[in-house]
Amino acid sequence: MTTRREQTSGESRELILGAAAELFAEKGYRQTTFADVAERSGISRGSIPWHFGSKEGLLLAVLERSVETLRAGLPTEPDLDVLVAGLEELFTRPTSKLFVTLLVEALEPGSPIHGRYAAIHETLREHCRQWLSRFPLPDGVSADALAVALIGAGIGIHQQWLVAPDKVDLPRSLAALRYLVAGVA
Amino acid sequence: MTTRREQTSGESRELILGAAAELFAEKGYRQTTFADVAERSGISRGSIPWHFGSKEGLLLAVLERSVETLRAGLPTEPDLDVLVAGLEELFTRPTSKLFVTLLVEALEPGSPIHGRYAAIHETLREHCRQWLSRFPLPDGVSADALAVALIGAGIGIHQQWLVAPDKVDLPRSLAALRYLVAGVA
Repeated sequence: MTTRREQTSGESRELILGAAAELFAEKGYRQTTFADVAERSGISRGSIPWHFGSKEGLLLAVLERSVETLRAGLPTEPDLDVLVAGLEELFTRPTSKLFVTLLVEALEPGSPIHGRYAAIHETLREHCRQWLSRFPLPDGVSADALAVALIGAGIGIHQQWLVAPDKVDLPRSLAALRYLVAGVA
Repeated sequence: MTTRREQTSGESRELILGAAAELFAEKGYRQTTFADVAERSGISRGSIPWHFGSKEGLLLAVLERSVETLRAGLPTEPDLDVLVAGLEELFTRPTSKLFVTLLVEALEPGSPIHGRYAAIHETLREHCRQWLSRFPLPDGVSADALAVALIGAGIGIHQQWLVAPDKVDLPRSLAALRYLVAGVA
């Protein structure tokens, strides 16, 4: 049974994480302060280090939350239609720019989130590899390398759309990715 | 004829641009100061605004220089082997992380480089579209949408390799992209 105090604490944690994810997406990680997160979340500034230790701790927790979101969006059974619909839903969320913020922070020398971020890419590739391993591939093209290219296409479609949502037709671009995948499989 | 003064000025400009590109790649745009650029380039701090006006002016000039680099690397005749070799050379340059720095800055609200950065993506897609328009494509898959997916794959392969150069085999991943492109064409 959850006590009232635990419930409130869990709720505060969620409110802080949601506000931080929005702010990291909008302003970037470095430009966001605990004061900004407190204002956006309505939770007192002092509670943030209590929940997350440091700003790095908050960044890691935001990353873990994105991982959960990503994982929940992956189809359990390989189904290209479900996958493409899931990507469109994920990419058009208001905070989807957060993926770019996390990438940049992961690439900082000595980044505290590098290992965890790299593990996300690896999980996505592994998912894709397992799926590709069902199909015969031509000589010289490994499931490994194709997984990098296909996951890469998802990443790059999303970023081009973030840069120019008026020029990049997201649903049709994802349909083109689906076509490329179907051509392999 | 170039006078001695012009030559020196052009050389200083190049030294500043080279140093700024390195620092923006290593530390990011916001973390880089004119003092850093002066120290790295060996050109006096006061010369930088003389050449570029402001830090934003310097960022724009670094972007234009990257565009020139990109343009020089595009094959004049469509040739997949030349393209793949060009991408590998481009991605493995020491300053290739600069593309991520520029992406993040372009995505900042009110970014001074957004329009120019968006134009680069558009140029790459246009190149790809023209090339794809030579081939019959299946119903429901436009050259537009395929160009987004294929340019996206290039972007996403590069980023996965930046994150985990030990896990992502860049030459084989680019070979997989080549295979996807060849399957379309």
